[in-house]
Amino acid sequence: MSFQVDGEVASCGGRLLKLNHESKETKTQMSVNIYLPQQYYTKQTSKIPVIYYLSGLTCSPQNASEKAFWQPQADKYGFAVVFPDTSPRGDEVPDDPENGWDFGLSAGFYVDATQDPYKKNYRMFSYVHDELPRALHQHFQKQGSSSQLDFLDNIAITGHSMGGFGAISAFLQLRSANKYKSCSAFAPMVSPSGVQWGEKAFGGYLGNDITTWKKYDPAALIQTVKNTNNDYILIHQGTSDPFYKKQLKPELLQQAAKGTTWEGKIDVQLVDGFDHSYYFISTFVPKHAEFHAKNLGLI
Amino acid sequence: MSFQVDGEVASCGGRLLKLNHESKETKTQMSVNIYLPQQYYTKQTSKIPVIYYLSGLTCSPQNASEKAFWQPQADKYGFAVVFPDTSPRGDEVPDDPENGWDFGLSAGFYVDATQDPYKKNYRMFSYVHDELPRALHQHFQKQGSSSQLDFLDNIAITGHSMGGFGAISAFLQLRSANKYKSCSAFAPMVSPSGVQWGEKAFGGYLGNDITTWKKYDPAALIQTVKNTNNDYILIHQGTSDPFYKKQLKPELLQQAAKGTTWEGKIDVQLVDGFDHSYYFISTFVPKHAEFHAKNLGLI
Repeated sequence: MSFQVDGEVASCGGRLLKLNHESKETKTQMSVNIYLPQQYYTKQTSKIPVIYYLSGLTCSPQNASEKAFWQPQADKYGFAVVFPDTSPRGDEVPDDPENGWDFGLSAGFYVDATQDPYKKNYRMFSYVHDELPRALHQHFQKQGSSSQLDFLDNIAITGHSMGGFGAISAFLQLRSANKYKSCSAFAPMVSPSGVQWGEKAFGGYLGNDITTWKKYDPAALIQTVKNTNNDYILIHQGTSDPFYKKQLKPELLQQAAKGTTWEGKIDVQLVDGFDHSYYFISTFVPKHAEFHAKNLGLI
Repeated sequence: MSFQVDGEVASCGGRLLKLNHESKETKTQMSVNIYLPQQYYTKQTSKIPVIYYLSGLTCSPQNASEKAFWQPQADKYGFAVVFPDTSPRGDEVPDDPENGWDFGLSAGFYVDATQDPYKKNYRMFSYVHDELPRALHQHFQKQGSSSQLDFLDNIAITGHSMGGFGAISAFLQLRSANKYKSCSAFAPMVSPSGVQWGEKAFGGYLGNDITTWKKYDPAALIQTVKNTNNDYILIHQGTSDPFYKKQLKPELLQQAAKGTTWEGKIDVQLVDGFDHSYYFISTFVPKHAEFHAKNLGLI
């Protein structure tokens, strides 16, 4: 469970750590970045909560670390940010037989695959939401600084596109355990059914019986998971995003919430002229940071 | 002189334009990005000054646009940012015969080459400091909005590494014409003599007679150009930058300024633990933005 340090770099008021570790879930070395804010280094006494940021298709932990610009927000409010990878990697990890960028490597969709040949390595749900946070907790505990960082309890989840799907899916699946205290998403895919990305990925990882997809499907989960905590989910969606109408369709989550305890709690903000890029993400990170900071008790 | 629009994307409160145009100087198509801040779109009546940002080795206009994060600062103070390319490009443009990344394509060093085969295309000094600003002025004049954007008069220059060299070099060369009102640099190379990057580039572009290098050499220029305006040059330099001691040596500029009108006016800020990356640049962009905003009369 121990981490190796691939790099450590000063950024804004804190430091970005580039780590890797051996994962029992994926049976591979997994890369992960973590930004520790200035409050970590000034040894403040209150615990620093953690936001997990799940990246989209084609990304590694580097993209959002470099381009989403969470760092000044983390310094402002006093939270850490964890950037997990988007899939297992390595020569022995099966990839998309079609060599697409929307399945396989960099496209794990944050599910535990049940189908051969993917089920051996593609266990991203268990990795991201269980193994990784426990491993980080233990790693910093060994360093004597676990009491400063809260990887397990006062935590939030967010993500972009495929990662926005992963964030909302996990938030709802783990709602009864009150795992994540806060959830938001940037241009998320909100249901795998009826969209090309979802059908390819879920067919590949979970098989063609779409009843097995519902476990992960935000639009299905929202109808069965109770909102007992007056939770809101914050979503931003650019109107010039080429994937908006065909792959993402965040309004489907609002529609599915109608008549449930989530009705009126899915805050989809359509933003004019923004696309699917990090120009979009970095522009709205301050809004998401403020949203999570409130839910994590930082303001 | 007209520009083609390769892309336009909403970013923060304004928009990033990705343009290209045919350059008479380089005899190639040149890419350039420009960020127009929110004040441009709210049609404020006062003229919007422009900061020219010169990128470092290996970069295109995209890198700094995505990673340096000038946009929120441009919105805060009300300036535009122009990101020129780092060299001419194209199959017919001669590159480094050694295939290095420190000469040729993406490594024009912002000089007008005098040596074959480079002198035909590598005219980056004339391109960046004369042709490009005039072309931008004319382009926006045709659109009827030139009165909003000041590409020619109330302007500043900055840059990173090779681009920091280019910024200081041009600021000093054009000081008597009062071309740039403000100059700063991130981890700049400050003298080509005695450093590997400089000797390779200047030998290739200008030839082996190092007296011809002095025209561009900040450490030489600072001894002949008068500081009649109480100008300061702001420089940040990371102490963990692998190029700091061997290629950049910003302290050489301070030493060269001793006994001149620039003595005490070269503000080199050493910043602990920062490297040569965009994590470094983006961290200190707010300081440089404030510096230029003051010098451009915005605050």
